[in-house]
Amino acid sequence: MMLRRRITLMGMSVIETASTREDLPLMVIPSCVPSMVEPLRKEFRKFDDVCRVRMYTDTVHDDEVFASRCKDADSVIVIGFRVSDDLLDRLATHVRCMVFGGTGVANYINLAKSQDYGMRICNIEHYGDNAVAEHTVALMFELARHAGHLDQELHDGNWVVMEGLELSGKTLGLVGFGGIGKAVARIAQGLGMHTLVYSRHEDHDALQAVGASWTSSLDEVFEHSDVLSLHLGLNEHTQGMITGEHLAKLHSGALFVNTARAELIEEGALVKRLNEGDVLAGLDVFDEEPIRTDDPLLSIPNAVLTPHVAWFTQEAVVNVVAQCAEAIGAFYRGERYNVVV
Amino acid sequence: MMLRRRITLMGMSVIETASTREDLPLMVIPSCVPSMVEPLRKEFRKFDDVCRVRMYTDTVHDDEVFASRCKDADSVIVIGFRVSDDLLDRLATHVRCMVFGGTGVANYINLAKSQDYGMRICNIEHYGDNAVAEHTVALMFELARHAGHLDQELHDGNWVVMEGLELSGKTLGLVGFGGIGKAVARIAQGLGMHTLVYSRHEDHDALQAVGASWTSSLDEVFEHSDVLSLHLGLNEHTQGMITGEHLAKLHSGALFVNTARAELIEEGALVKRLNEGDVLAGLDVFDEEPIRTDDPLLSIPNAVLTPHVAWFTQEAVVNVVAQCAEAIGAFYRGERYNVVV
Repeated sequence: MMLRRRITLMGMSVIETASTREDLPLMVIPSCVPSMVEPLRKEFRKFDDVCRVRMYTDTVHDDEVFASRCKDADSVIVIGFRVSDDLLDRLATHVRCMVFGGTGVANYINLAKSQDYGMRICNIEHYGDNAVAEHTVALMFELARHAGHLDQELHDGNWVVMEGLELSGKTLGLVGFGGIGKAVARIAQGLGMHTLVYSRHEDHDALQAVGASWTSSLDEVFEHSDVLSLHLGLNEHTQGMITGEHLAKLHSGALFVNTARAELIEEGALVKRLNEGDVLAGLDVFDEEPIRTDDPLLSIPNAVLTPHVAWFTQEAVVNVVAQCAEAIGAFYRGERYNVVV
Repeated sequence: MMLRRRITLMGMSVIETASTREDLPLMVIPSCVPSMVEPLRKEFRKFDDVCRVRMYTDTVHDDEVFASRCKDADSVIVIGFRVSDDLLDRLATHVRCMVFGGTGVANYINLAKSQDYGMRICNIEHYGDNAVAEHTVALMFELARHAGHLDQELHDGNWVVMEGLELSGKTLGLVGFGGIGKAVARIAQGLGMHTLVYSRHEDHDALQAVGASWTSSLDEVFEHSDVLSLHLGLNEHTQGMITGEHLAKLHSGALFVNTARAELIEEGALVKRLNEGDVLAGLDVFDEEPIRTDDPLLSIPNAVLTPHVAWFTQEAVVNVVAQCAEAIGAFYRGERYNVVV
């Protein structure tokens, strides 16, 4: 194990390994989140004799600070930061590889520009499939059984008995059937639900593995679902794809869950549908995050709202960090791992 | 359809069918709960030409009222009422059959005495297996993902991000493997958990069906579980069966769930273990219900508490009611259905 030093400044620490080995290239993590600091640090020994590491443990929101922290970097791990084109131009003078610690890298780094610069960009894949799928089911359960709400009442001194709803035997409609949709379908099978999948192509084997049916009609999945959950990525084809007409097809008493992206839904359409009062909603994503204090969703009684945490588990964090380390390691070994451009 | 009349007095209604058919025996429901009124009423047409029905829609807590409402009854459906021996003596002069709308009838009606009187006693079976199993999983999810808690925070204006825990890949220990335990194991299989069952006998086929392992050692199941859940009935053998020594074996970070009966646990042992602060608990059952306002469980931060609602779903209520009706119908047809004595 090589020399490791840690400097603490105003609640921010800089953690370095091999700081004297100037023969090695420098990998910088210019911004971090508290829960990732220790998992990242545990990976550092993988870089002995590969690169020096310098990690800043606080969260940066400013291009200047980001750029100055990266000034000697040969490679960078980007956590929760949107790299502007201007910043990218400055980094490209010396940075040869950036690993984005999440999915949807195209929304955070200009891929075409990076490619022009010959800079390798990596992302992270499927790290949160289980995490998001389980939070989806957690939202269904809070809507169906109110455990968190009843706990609050009981702690407030109210022994309030509320009738629940069973998920067993109900029809679950999934819009999207990628890694997360498939994980939700597997859980739903154990719950004894009937799963109806809307997706562009019929993935027969994957459907059969979880006992699910398939439809190419978005109308149909909204019409037949007791519980409807969105599991699509956001792109130009999916933005606003769920319209007021689709939501109108949800039957009275249906549960609507969104742990994907708020922008999948036509603006204003969800609030309009929920205001009718007969559909319950579990939402982890919002048009603005943190949610605006005047967001009408906050006044809807039948909505359970969580602050974009579906992806955020101990296990997902460990997975993200391991993939980041693997992508950096592969770059220096001259191999390819999660390479986007 | 025969004459049906309804008298409303001070928020209480009396619903009668075939009230003029004095040639038919009278079945009385002297006490009810709000959620069962409509489901019961829908069953009444099954008794046309079988018996007259008289249902009181309010909830009775008093022997005198109960007895006076049953004074002409030939059969009785008992909902949520403990029949004292003294009351039983009075009913036995004319009541020939009582159907208890729940499980654990032995705690509510003296079976030996009923048998001596030649009174048929019926109960309800497995009506709540899915309901209780799903609430068990709902409690696990509230402990793991805090959806209800985060919803409360968000509505209070706090966008508080809390790290979650995935259930996938974790070991679930089940103490008891009857209808409810098996239903939990099936859900856990969908969640990708490893299930370890403690039960007296190894039910090989049922274990295999849900991919579970078995142990005859209670110590072992407590030692190896990331999530431990109780699914035993309460009787002289199981009362106090879970001791402080067992609870001490739970590892730091483990989740403990009880939707069965508080009395399964040695008195005071759970509070003692939870006070160590490293185990999370989801509890639906308490030594006294409603919970005492000075119950130390209310001051434990890592406990999610719900007011004995695990059994209480729309679907379970319909099932209870259907079984009650079937038991009464069988009695008058000279058949046996859910007969206890």
